[in-house]
Amino acid sequence: MARRKKIYEGKAKILYEGPEPGTLVQYFKDDATAFNAEKKAVIEGKGVLNNRLSEFFMTGLTQIGIPTHFIKRLNMREQLIRQVEIIPLEVIVRNFAAGTMAKRLGMEEGTALPRPIVEFSYKDDSLGDPLVPEEYIIAFGWASQQDMDDIVSLALRVNDWMSGVMYGVGIKLIDFKIEIGRVWDNEFPRLMLADEISPDSCRLWDIETGQKLDKDVFRRDLGNLTDAYTEVAKRLGVMPSNVTHRPNKPTLIN
Amino acid sequence: MARRKKIYEGKAKILYEGPEPGTLVQYFKDDATAFNAEKKAVIEGKGVLNNRLSEFFMTGLTQIGIPTHFIKRLNMREQLIRQVEIIPLEVIVRNFAAGTMAKRLGMEEGTALPRPIVEFSYKDDSLGDPLVPEEYIIAFGWASQQDMDDIVSLALRVNDWMSGVMYGVGIKLIDFKIEIGRVWDNEFPRLMLADEISPDSCRLWDIETGQKLDKDVFRRDLGNLTDAYTEVAKRLGVMPSNVTHRPNKPTLIN
Ligand SMILES: Nc1ncnc2c1ncn2[C@@H]1O[C@H](COP(=O)(O)OP(=O)(O)O)[C@@H](O)[C@H]1O
Ligand SMILES: Nc1ncnc2c1ncn2[C@@H]1O[C@H](COP(=O)(O)OP(=O)(O)O)[C@@H](O)[C@H]1O
Ligand SMILES: [Mg+2]
Ligand SMILES: [Mg+2]
Repeated sequence: MARRKKIYEGKAKILYEGPEPGTLVQYFKDDATAFNAEKKAVIEGKGVLNNRLSEFFMTGLTQIGIPTHFIKRLNMREQLIRQVEIIPLEVIVRNFAAGTMAKRLGMEEGTALPRPIVEFSYKDDSLGDPLVPEEYIIAFGWASQQDMDDIVSLALRVNDWMSGVMYGVGIKLIDFKIEIGRVWDNEFPRLMLADEISPDSCRLWDIETGQKLDKDVFRRDLGNLTDAYTEVAKRLGVMPSNVTHRPNKPTLIN
Repeated sequence: MARRKKIYEGKAKILYEGPEPGTLVQYFKDDATAFNAEKKAVIEGKGVLNNRLSEFFMTGLTQIGIPTHFIKRLNMREQLIRQVEIIPLEVIVRNFAAGTMAKRLGMEEGTALPRPIVEFSYKDDSLGDPLVPEEYIIAFGWASQQDMDDIVSLALRVNDWMSGVMYGVGIKLIDFKIEIGRVWDNEFPRLMLADEISPDSCRLWDIETGQKLDKDVFRRDLGNLTDAYTEVAKRLGVMPSNVTHRPNKPTLIN
């Protein structure tokens, strides 16, 4: 059986050629990185959890009419996705100050924002994903004004829905990052949610205790990352039977 | 101690004069009615559950920036609310066909709609809350075009967030009804979510089994209504220690 062609290997995931044109297989690694990959580790089971959780969130978002790249989960570590042209932006939605925003503005982490704030980083590791004003995005042609309006609406809907998901299981959605891709239906461009939604890309605090249940546990050495992600998965009823299973070779997809 | 003045007694709740001008106390009764009050029963514990659940939903919606009438819960059956001018509409958001919509269009219950649909009934028991086109609402002056635009946006945000809350605990949000009120800040009108959000005003189906966890259990004699509402409350971590406690007399509020 031929090994599938690797298209891209990133910090947390690998993309393989998919079974049909326009599809890819997204493989979730156990690798964790932070601070633009200055800090690195392998966290046993993280990939399995993120694969499941991203499936769970993307499926729910599809049901409320948000287009996503997700087609189906293939196995413990892989999902079939639509291939998109990634818009080179990290779209960040913030409900409470944290991370770089808190630092930049000298705000205490956890401070409620007057309303959800959508911001954008230019996705380029060599530049450290710098924050950019919308003006830059339009001027450099990374996205059109119409794209940006659609992206903001989509991001705010994702925020409302994800805030609800988390509220129902006693978790505060502090902020999250999404990526948006473009596909062409004939000549007509359509935007969709791509990449992943997982505790790697969200800040999640327990409502009662404030305990962090996201990648900050790794960034700041606050404990066992898999335990934190498992807690999120458990509360949502997303419980892989065995989170440490790792297939030896890429699985066949028919 | 003086008894509080009763302002209005409806089918499921009683409104009392509140401790400050512009406030009311909303008392949740155990009474259940259906088919425009042709079917009636007292369901031990329902009022306690709805008081808790409405608090839970209104609190979460406030946190995402949806204005609501909710101020605070006072006791097992009562909450303090802002007094509003109720817009005489039932604002209904539907994700799947059910109830009167399914009947009217000859659709099977549970059929997914192409997108969420917002519809309006004129709130008048003597007319049986008839469905009305938006055109009527504007023409008769029940709400302005600006109000209606704001109401639709608000209803869709509530829908996204509530869909998320329910998805996270394995429940499908089929449809729900809300009421909207107006308050005046100086001369300036502001709309806010009023009345209640509870299994009395939502259709909730278990995602796996399709089991109904809402007032249809009563409407259609499908089992014990308190058990169904308790299941919803449990999944959301909203668990009153004793759902059948009923204060003998209205509680003092300072
Ligand atoms: N549907 C998709 N089509 C094409 N590329 C995608 C899709 N979804 C995500 N990607 C890209 O795949 C990569 C995922 O791997 P990841 O380890 O997150 O990479 P990175 O280190 O660049 O963030 C990202 O570069 C992301 O932009
Ligand atoms: N914040 C509020 N201010 C004033 N009236 C309200 C407010 N919230 C709800 N109401 C009204 O209070 C009543 C609640 O009691 P309910 O038993 O539901 O009545 P009904 O049988 O008329 O539906 C409703 O008529 C509703 O429109
Ligand atoms: Mg990435
Ligand atoms: Mg009512």
